[in-house]
Amino acid sequence: MKLVRYGDAGAEKPALLDGEGRLRDLSALVADISGGTLDDASLDRLRRLDPETLPLVEGNPRIGPCVGNIGKFLCIGLNYSDHAAETGAAIPEHPILFLKANSAIVGPYDDVVIPRGSTQTDWEIELGVVIGKTAKYVDRANALDHVAGYCIVNDVSERHFQMQLTGQWTKGKSCDTFGPTGPWLVTRDEIADPQNLGMALEVNGKRMQTGNTATMIFTVAEIIEHLSQLFTLHPGDVISTGTPPGVGMGMKPRPVYLRDGDVMDLRIDGLGHQRQRVRSDD
Amino acid sequence: MKLVRYGDAGAEKPALLDGEGRLRDLSALVADISGGTLDDASLDRLRRLDPETLPLVEGNPRIGPCVGNIGKFLCIGLNYSDHAAETGAAIPEHPILFLKANSAIVGPYDDVVIPRGSTQTDWEIELGVVIGKTAKYVDRANALDHVAGYCIVNDVSERHFQMQLTGQWTKGKSCDTFGPTGPWLVTRDEIADPQNLGMALEVNGKRMQTGNTATMIFTVAEIIEHLSQLFTLHPGDVISTGTPPGVGMGMKPRPVYLRDGDVMDLRIDGLGHQRQRVRSDD
Repeated sequence: MKLVRYGDAGAEKPALLDGEGRLRDLSALVADISGGTLDDASLDRLRRLDPETLPLVEGNPRIGPCVGNIGKFLCIGLNYSDHAAETGAAIPEHPILFLKANSAIVGPYDDVVIPRGSTQTDWEIELGVVIGKTAKYVDRANALDHVAGYCIVNDVSERHFQMQLTGQWTKGKSCDTFGPTGPWLVTRDEIADPQNLGMALEVNGKRMQTGNTATMIFTVAEIIEHLSQLFTLHPGDVISTGTPPGVGMGMKPRPVYLRDGDVMDLRIDGLGHQRQRVRSDD
Repeated sequence: MKLVRYGDAGAEKPALLDGEGRLRDLSALVADISGGTLDDASLDRLRRLDPETLPLVEGNPRIGPCVGNIGKFLCIGLNYSDHAAETGAAIPEHPILFLKANSAIVGPYDDVVIPRGSTQTDWEIELGVVIGKTAKYVDRANALDHVAGYCIVNDVSERHFQMQLTGQWTKGKSCDTFGPTGPWLVTRDEIADPQNLGMALEVNGKRMQTGNTATMIFTVAEIIEHLSQLFTLHPGDVISTGTPPGVGMGMKPRPVYLRDGDVMDLRIDGLGHQRQRVRSDD
């Protein structure tokens, strides 16, 4: 099942995708696609519906982030072995965690805005994991039971803010519009193996990132195990699990960063497509 | 004006403190003390009320965090010159920012829970700044216009999680219950100078931290200026502005950490008092 939120920012309505890829409104059944409606029982109830009986969404509305009212947006750094090899970075002993501010979260086709004065805005395609069931002190064997589903995340990053403004990455990760999330929350029953998903990111039609979740250093299950020892993962939390090779910062002979007018396209197997136009706030 | 949220966790009601220190319920006037009700006009409307006309809250209810539905909980590290001198750390060039997960936020008298396996849970009294008006690209001269008010924050920190689990402080800052906030949101008109507030933290009645916001490296206004260049500060965001000398990690001849049964008392001039009992989750 593919869940979608459509409508103006801050006033999105819940929907699901029918067999022909059309949006079917769920407003009469759930208030939102968010923490309160991501448990297995709620998802099963939606799954049993005949989409043909649901109101067809007319027109071509904006698509919002696929989860509403996200509690915490957890991001894992340096989590692909081929990306670590490419950059020469050491393999981390534990998952590297930082938080992205919730105010950065936008829809999958919304503009990405380069902050005033920025010259090092970069892309990062990532597998997003949406928590559906509370997780505290869970082990990896049961970790995926706590997952509602998966989505694409673009962990947009300002490298100067991230690394040159006196410590802690979150400054470069939390700029407004730096968290396109969606288009769909694809429930976990549709993803046979989250550790075998091809990933691709293009800038202006040129392939920049090519990867597969098979080369993650810490699997989704291991990440959930680790984080749940530290704090509770709540329904509606999102974990973005790191990026494969090909970010702009690592380009040779010199880094390549986003500029006003650039267009990013992102795809992950089974999770759909994102596209953002880049514009400068200068 | 001192605003308070009382009642069970997750179902707090808004109130204000009357002249005798009693709670007066505001439920008929505002849905919550949160982003939507922190602008100057809303606060002025509450300020004009005669507290005697409001329903008296009976009994001795739990006090919740003084802001509901906090958008982002921003924390500044190493922001007191006397604390930096004490630890030998260099004065940072810019405010050091990390985020505390929202799921860590609790009321000012709630228990602080030491996570399973933790041995290095520490205290940090801090001045909390509650944003009342959207701030983007603001300068320090106007920054305080964006503040609704102030409160006490205990930025509880697990030092092993913070520094030994492979990078980024947020792991040690985001454990459940690690963000006692309140008891009151004291509106900014009652705080003549946020850069001249005495601070004190005791553990089991013994004074551990003694400080004054006068020794902040970056003032509240400078912090808001800096952060608002990076992203939008929204009403209901909270900034915790760093801690003065005397944390457990810095004790001589060896660090001192919290143990099951310890009691912390925190006070900041004009902002009231917090008390948390510590219990272990082992």
